[in-house]
Amino acid sequence: MPALRIYRTPIAAEWIDYNGHLRDAYYGLILSLATDALMDRLGIDAPYRQRTRCTLYTVETHIHYLKEVHASDVVTVDAAILDSDAKRIHAALGLACEGRAEPAAAAETMLLHVAQGDPPAIAPFPPAIARAIEQLRGQSADALAGPRSRRMELRRRA
Amino acid sequence: MPALRIYRTPIAAEWIDYNGHLRDAYYGLILSLATDALMDRLGIDAPYRQRTRCTLYTVETHIHYLKEVHASDVVTVDAAILDSDAKRIHAALGLACEGRAEPAAAAETMLLHVAQGDPPAIAPFPPAIARAIEQLRGQSADALAGPRSRRMELRRRA
Repeated sequence: MPALRIYRTPIAAEWIDYNGHLRDAYYGLILSLATDALMDRLGIDAPYRQRTRCTLYTVETHIHYLKEVHASDVVTVDAAILDSDAKRIHAALGLACEGRAEPAAAAETMLLHVAQGDPPAIAPFPPAIARAIEQLRGQSADALAGPRSRRMELRRRA
Repeated sequence: MPALRIYRTPIAAEWIDYNGHLRDAYYGLILSLATDALMDRLGIDAPYRQRTRCTLYTVETHIHYLKEVHASDVVTVDAAILDSDAKRIHAALGLACEGRAEPAAAAETMLLHVAQGDPPAIAPFPPAIARAIEQLRGQSADALAGPRSRRMELRRRA
């Protein structure tokens, strides 16, 4: 099964750093905007958020930077749901430059469903959204190439 | 030994998202700007980069989002070097809001020293920078609170 093509954007000039390529943090911004698109797809969109005061909070993100991205590139993001429970989504995102086969970044993110009261409180997904998550999870798990999240360390040759 | 206070910034209004708090990606931007300050501290500054065409590329970043950050906050970033070898730095960064004790985010990042030729090539640190890394590593390892990098997964109660 293919992953879900969820987002596409040209590279803004102000996202390029002194190294002449996309600053690491703006890979993160593109992945964040792609996560918004994934939320829309699952029904956790602006009307839902306004009606219920529920939203997703990102609790953890792990990004592997695999290829440089330049000002002339247009990038796409594919999404897959690796796992989920009553209140959390573990998603994978792959960022690629149009016209190149290898991913430019591979990411995972853990998203938590929160009711924004005072204080905010973790809340279970309503049934319609739980079904949408389950359906997408069945379609897309393991569809993305690239390294997965891991404990970060300097690996040394023996 | 305390960690190194490396960066401080108010929160820009455009970094706040539809949830009314700092968008996840802008935690990443603050951490990226703090990493630039760490590079300056180690001598991998703009004159060094211009003279040698060597710089650091981020190859991997893992962020735990621990607390919400709001538009009225001023945040600080502390840095520590957890590990290093001839061409890589494994750094930890802790982001906190001034006036609050608990960290708002804990991150780790793997940085690779690269000579920006065509193509770019991994390069060893020159001796003066290797010494600066070693010195800071001795001062700062394990100084930061917060969770460390790990394989991301939904942990379920038995």
